[in-house]
Amino acid sequence: MERLRDLDEAELLARVLPLYAAAVAPDDAALPVGPGDDAAVLATPSGTVVATTDGMVRGRDWRDDWSSPHDVGVKVSVQNLADVAAMGAVPTGLLVSLVADPDTPVDWVLGLAEGIAAVSRESGAPVVGGDLSSGPAGVVTVTLTALGDLRGRRPVRRSGARPGDVVAVCGTLGTSGGGLALYLAGRSSGGGEDADRLRAAHRAPRPPWEAGPVAAEAGAHALVDVSDGLVTDLGRVARASGVGIDLSGEALRTRFASGPLERCLGADEALRQVLGGGEEHSLVGCFPASVDLGALPGRPWVAVGRVGGTGPDGASVTVDGVVPDVRGWDHFAGA
Amino acid sequence: MERLRDLDEAELLARVLPLYAAAVAPDDAALPVGPGDDAAVLATPSGTVVATTDGMVRGRDWRDDWSSPHDVGVKVSVQNLADVAAMGAVPTGLLVSLVADPDTPVDWVLGLAEGIAAVSRESGAPVVGGDLSSGPAGVVTVTLTALGDLRGRRPVRRSGARPGDVVAVCGTLGTSGGGLALYLAGRSSGGGEDADRLRAAHRAPRPPWEAGPVAAEAGAHALVDVSDGLVTDLGRVARASGVGIDLSGEALRTRFASGPLERCLGADEALRQVLGGGEEHSLVGCFPASVDLGALPGRPWVAVGRVGGTGPDGASVTVDGVVPDVRGWDHFAGA
Repeated sequence: MERLRDLDEAELLARVLPLYAAAVAPDDAALPVGPGDDAAVLATPSGTVVATTDGMVRGRDWRDDWSSPHDVGVKVSVQNLADVAAMGAVPTGLLVSLVADPDTPVDWVLGLAEGIAAVSRESGAPVVGGDLSSGPAGVVTVTLTALGDLRGRRPVRRSGARPGDVVAVCGTLGTSGGGLALYLAGRSSGGGEDADRLRAAHRAPRPPWEAGPVAAEAGAHALVDVSDGLVTDLGRVARASGVGIDLSGEALRTRFASGPLERCLGADEALRQVLGGGEEHSLVGCFPASVDLGALPGRPWVAVGRVGGTGPDGASVTVDGVVPDVRGWDHFAGA
Repeated sequence: MERLRDLDEAELLARVLPLYAAAVAPDDAALPVGPGDDAAVLATPSGTVVATTDGMVRGRDWRDDWSSPHDVGVKVSVQNLADVAAMGAVPTGLLVSLVADPDTPVDWVLGLAEGIAAVSRESGAPVVGGDLSSGPAGVVTVTLTALGDLRGRRPVRRSGARPGDVVAVCGTLGTSGGGLALYLAGRSSGGGEDADRLRAAHRAPRPPWEAGPVAAEAGAHALVDVSDGLVTDLGRVARASGVGIDLSGEALRTRFASGPLERCLGADEALRQVLGGGEEHSLVGCFPASVDLGALPGRPWVAVGRVGGTGPDGASVTVDGVVPDVRGWDHFAGA
């Protein structure tokens, strides 16, 4: 098997860069300088640029026996695009930094690049730059930076939620966490189409990043993606905005916890994943009550709660007025 | 000793973010959204943004027995700023991604942040975002993304060198490689001020990133930073531009290989480091002959060669007409 140590950097780049170049047609106006110079130059017609970075570590953020390199490439890309979307922006460029053991198979790296290229193609954001470094034995880390453009709109902050706003979700909830629960329970295959869907959502989610600009255009007061769990992420919105958020248990059960999640995990665990499951990267917005959610273009937004004053004992987020028992994910303490 | 696993992510960020915030005074116009939201938003008054990413891996790109965490923070920052400078741009923002073993001392991470903050302060580019991930035992990788602004000028590409251009260097050559040579020879301390200077240049270089915009303003046709060695990096310029570059052995010996390098390593090894030493991050430009290098503001530019046709056997870079015997650094094959 061909491994990274068998190629020099130029040879590896000669195989990787065409995958990226084929994903998004070159546009010299939008990308005056692409990969290959000291740095890339991107057009920023709005006069601002949105920037975020997020990485994945082999053995921590993915397992090779569960995830293909394509899965990893998709996941690391979409989690960055979701952060861009959560500001209300359109993705415009990706930078890819790979640290890899020289024993890593070349095919694994090409599979990773194909996954990133697939998201690049779907989102229209070209890969504009990157970096390759050799790592210690067994180590592979992939860090992406995503850039975005607000199309002249103001960024949608976490801190803008106001009492009376409707809280609405675009995309699924709990499916990535549900898939992880299946893997952790040893159910890494079988279980039919429902289980396959949950596991796929964990390995390579497809959050609705196109909905970020839609929410911004509709006048959303606050917007985040679900990285660490609905209650955890909405708690950040609530604290930043100085408000409380009350979620509807019925809306969450009927619109999100039912279906594959409930059939695979049972009703209680399904609701727990909807409230606490991370890495879903769906979008949650706080909209003025005057916004007709049903009229928004693209994937549907589902109302799941209301912004009000803080809950009992100053709680930021409640479900039907009660503080839910969920725990978010913490990278170091939770490891 | 306090370690990362003793803190949750919020507690760690509460110690790190103030270091960055204190480095560059907040400017809401330049940075409408800083760290803490889903993504940062930076002003890009020129209508473009320059973007680059570059990482360092413990045990590969630094050794803990040689480099302090402050050194690592400085080095990973300046190598990114040098790439921004090599397009002719001014640095405007940094994103920091850290993957670290939960056993990593908290003080190490704070020292790293202080090193990054020191460069942030000196360059005026704020840290606008970042990411923290736990890594396998013993693993620490730091990846930075740097953003920059061209101030309305066109980017200075590698491909613009023209026959008749004067090749000039701003900053030192070979000192980082010379310092590494001392470490590798077991001379990790002692040797007086000269040796200290070389070792410091290897651990935490201070390339002249301010000179990038100066070169662009003066009309440089091509510009790069010395990442992999003068001959290797100029070879890329020569090939991208379809030209040859002939360097002056005398200029390189008298202006760069003399002094600390020659006193520590001898004349032959000093010249070898000037031609082949990597990680110096000084800037090399190809200027129209009409440019008065002596009149450029800031750190001096020293003429070291001429752009012409390709050399003997199609060689891209020669020294006094002869192909030099140097080898650049390759991350995987050279590891």
